[in-house]
Amino acid sequence: MDHQQFRKYGHELIDWLADYMDEVETFPVVSPVKPGEIKSRIPASPPASAEPMERIFVDFRDLILPGITHWQHPGWFAYFPANNSPPSVLAELLTAGLGAQCMIWQTSPAAAELEESVMEWLREMLGLPEEMTGCIQDTASTATLCALLTAREKTTGYQSNRIGLQHPLKVYTSEETHSSIEKGVKIAGFGSNAIASIATDEHFAMVPQELEKQIIEDKKKGLHPCCVVATIGTTSSTAIDPLEDIGRICRRHHVWLHVDAAFAGTAAILPEMRHLLNGIEYADSFVCNPHKWMLTNFDCSAYFVRDPGALIQTFEIHPEYLKTGRDAEVKNYRDWGIQLGRRFRALKLWFVIRSYGVEGLKTMVREHLRLAQLFSGWLQADARFEAMAPVSVSLVCFRLNDGRPELQLNELNARLLQSVNETGKVFLTHTALKGKTVLRMMIGQRTTSEKHVRLAWDIIAEKAQELLAGD
Amino acid sequence: MDHQQFRKYGHELIDWLADYMDEVETFPVVSPVKPGEIKSRIPASPPASAEPMERIFVDFRDLILPGITHWQHPGWFAYFPANNSPPSVLAELLTAGLGAQCMIWQTSPAAAELEESVMEWLREMLGLPEEMTGCIQDTASTATLCALLTAREKTTGYQSNRIGLQHPLKVYTSEETHSSIEKGVKIAGFGSNAIASIATDEHFAMVPQELEKQIIEDKKKGLHPCCVVATIGTTSSTAIDPLEDIGRICRRHHVWLHVDAAFAGTAAILPEMRHLLNGIEYADSFVCNPHKWMLTNFDCSAYFVRDPGALIQTFEIHPEYLKTGRDAEVKNYRDWGIQLGRRFRALKLWFVIRSYGVEGLKTMVREHLRLAQLFSGWLQADARFEAMAPVSVSLVCFRLNDGRPELQLNELNARLLQSVNETGKVFLTHTALKGKTVLRMMIGQRTTSEKHVRLAWDIIAEKAQELLAGD
Repeated sequence: MDHQQFRKYGHELIDWLADYMDEVETFPVVSPVKPGEIKSRIPASPPASAEPMERIFVDFRDLILPGITHWQHPGWFAYFPANNSPPSVLAELLTAGLGAQCMIWQTSPAAAELEESVMEWLREMLGLPEEMTGCIQDTASTATLCALLTAREKTTGYQSNRIGLQHPLKVYTSEETHSSIEKGVKIAGFGSNAIASIATDEHFAMVPQELEKQIIEDKKKGLHPCCVVATIGTTSSTAIDPLEDIGRICRRHHVWLHVDAAFAGTAAILPEMRHLLNGIEYADSFVCNPHKWMLTNFDCSAYFVRDPGALIQTFEIHPEYLKTGRDAEVKNYRDWGIQLGRRFRALKLWFVIRSYGVEGLKTMVREHLRLAQLFSGWLQADARFEAMAPVSVSLVCFRLNDGRPELQLNELNARLLQSVNETGKVFLTHTALKGKTVLRMMIGQRTTSEKHVRLAWDIIAEKAQELLAGD
Repeated sequence: MDHQQFRKYGHELIDWLADYMDEVETFPVVSPVKPGEIKSRIPASPPASAEPMERIFVDFRDLILPGITHWQHPGWFAYFPANNSPPSVLAELLTAGLGAQCMIWQTSPAAAELEESVMEWLREMLGLPEEMTGCIQDTASTATLCALLTAREKTTGYQSNRIGLQHPLKVYTSEETHSSIEKGVKIAGFGSNAIASIATDEHFAMVPQELEKQIIEDKKKGLHPCCVVATIGTTSSTAIDPLEDIGRICRRHHVWLHVDAAFAGTAAILPEMRHLLNGIEYADSFVCNPHKWMLTNFDCSAYFVRDPGALIQTFEIHPEYLKTGRDAEVKNYRDWGIQLGRRFRALKLWFVIRSYGVEGLKTMVREHLRLAQLFSGWLQADARFEAMAPVSVSLVCFRLNDGRPELQLNELNARLLQSVNETGKVFLTHTALKGKTVLRMMIGQRTTSEKHVRLAWDIIAEKAQELLAGD
């Protein structure tokens, strides 16, 4: 394809995408295809000769699109959102077109310095401590792994990197923590037995007294407390771990504090929600994903640390073929994480923050918070339903409860979820809270407005009615 | 920005990108900005109010672009290439526009199944063993870390994931291996002391006898040989480790064999270069980056394994909130690597392979191989220069050598590199081979043609003349 053809097809694709953005609501949220259906229609072998873009694009539309689950659908109430936005998509286009590999400063100075700037913008927007600095990672999984590794190295005097992990270290996190913590603990060589799973209170938040008790017990046993992972907005229920209390315990016992605010952190751009991060001054590291709720398409995970020197000491390696004359004067972000290769991710965050302005982003977040309260109000006014967790941000956890035994309730709610999702109009997911099956109504899609939340409620109420009548 | 504005600005950006692709040759390859120059022009705080896209785009052009190092410049002879291509950029646009998060099958069935298909295409194109299967990772750093972790778990009976790494494991790789191996070994908790750095021969390839000797010695000491990383195309000189001999040693001693063919692997699509992968039947895992030499823009790293069960057993975690009714029937790629979140990377590889056809890709690779031989011929015909490594693929390693002492030669060649790069017409990087500073003429950019290679040679010859005359 030459550059004139790129121009031609580029225009066609932009038009198609603009239409898609307008029409995404007309698709079923979750693709209804069966396992194997898409693959069975793709040739087993690659084509020997070039195919025209017309044919490739027709296949994209007719073959791939029906197998897409539409994360940008206004009826997306599942998991956490992964928002894109028009300016973010345009920036990704530029990033792909420039094709710069941003492993070190010299390989794209603007990418490195814009990354530094937008991270400072974000720090200010979120009210993080001024001494925090950071870089963009791909995901919170990676950011958390970076935190665990830096904590591991700091606890062992940077010896584990050399001699392996020979000390019995402990990592503390609540029983409601994200799966990426266990994954990171395994990857970093601690072993999952190193995790102390701290009990949560009735709001699914870590009980700090239990944390301190465990740390003291472990110290007595000769184990080394290494890292506490606190969550601001757990995946199941957006529970808020009490950061100030946890932070003081970490300070007292000299334990690294990593704060996972992957989704809910964005809410801290609102002064009225800034309290979510009370205690952040105790954090050694912090992650928040603009690719979830800040309109910057996946992947863009902002990782902040108090001591970049510790991060760099954990990761730096200096092969001759990567040395440049500038290394002493610049930030080489290859030394700030796992991967050597890095995309120019700062560009999309820069486009988004400027295109919406901080006020524009605040307006969106406020509206989602309002919609969650609205939905929560409808729910509480309906005796068939039970609220299952505090609505700390914009996730409403609930279940249908007609008083039948717990195990049957779980099964009833699984059926409710399935019938709601089968409408194709909305998509919610489930979780388990202290053994109870719970539906998650997660309001955070850019295009979701009150009518979509109302539609979701109507569908839920209707399907509940059908289920209860049928049983 | 509404969708009509997206359409308007999308068209403008497509036109700009098409022009950029035409004009990239007019820019200096490496950005001439000084450290801090870009950042000093970016406001310290984010804008409160929305800014118009016109202003953002003007800033992109006037502020960011001068700080970009142009990886898609035909004068790019540095590092390894990171090629994009028009169809790949278009696919990235669609990926960003769909904004699907491909962590599990249900969250985008087409993404999961297309990934399976294009990986099968790639396996066939590269002539990999039929039993190999895999998925797309972001980078070879990540793929290699996955290999090290799977080897760690297999060697310890999947106990390290639970109890931590308590056995003294060893990892074997040549002294010419990529820095990501040491990084991965540190991350996975082995400690860098676990690395046995195996000597290389006069062609910078691992000496298999030395490998086996080391394995036997380590076993006698009670250490556990865990993984051998062989490189097909080292970063410094594209040296080719002797895979068949290494493979037989691994088989004999029951050691995991990971093959890092991040750059050079692509050459195996040519029948006449298939010999690069002789011995691949011994490999447990294999990585090749289509984002380097297969026109698929960064990031797209193809990771193949012989035993996906071992990979999954290393990484899988099943939190309630990610369970779906389909899990037994489908591939959930979140369990095939480090990160939970995943972009729809298969789309761009599919667009590229179809748009060029396998023959089109072969034609490009063949031309790069021809150009490398041409350059190598010029070099060998000029007595001032010395060829420093075999041209196994399309990298030519050389230095200026007028017979002065070694340390002075290193300094002379560093100066040569600097003066060549300061022209802004071409960009080469350096390495050290057995202590000698070497210039790397890496030919692999999509847009590089004979005239650009000729220009590079003319500049190198001219600058060499000036240096020798001036000394």
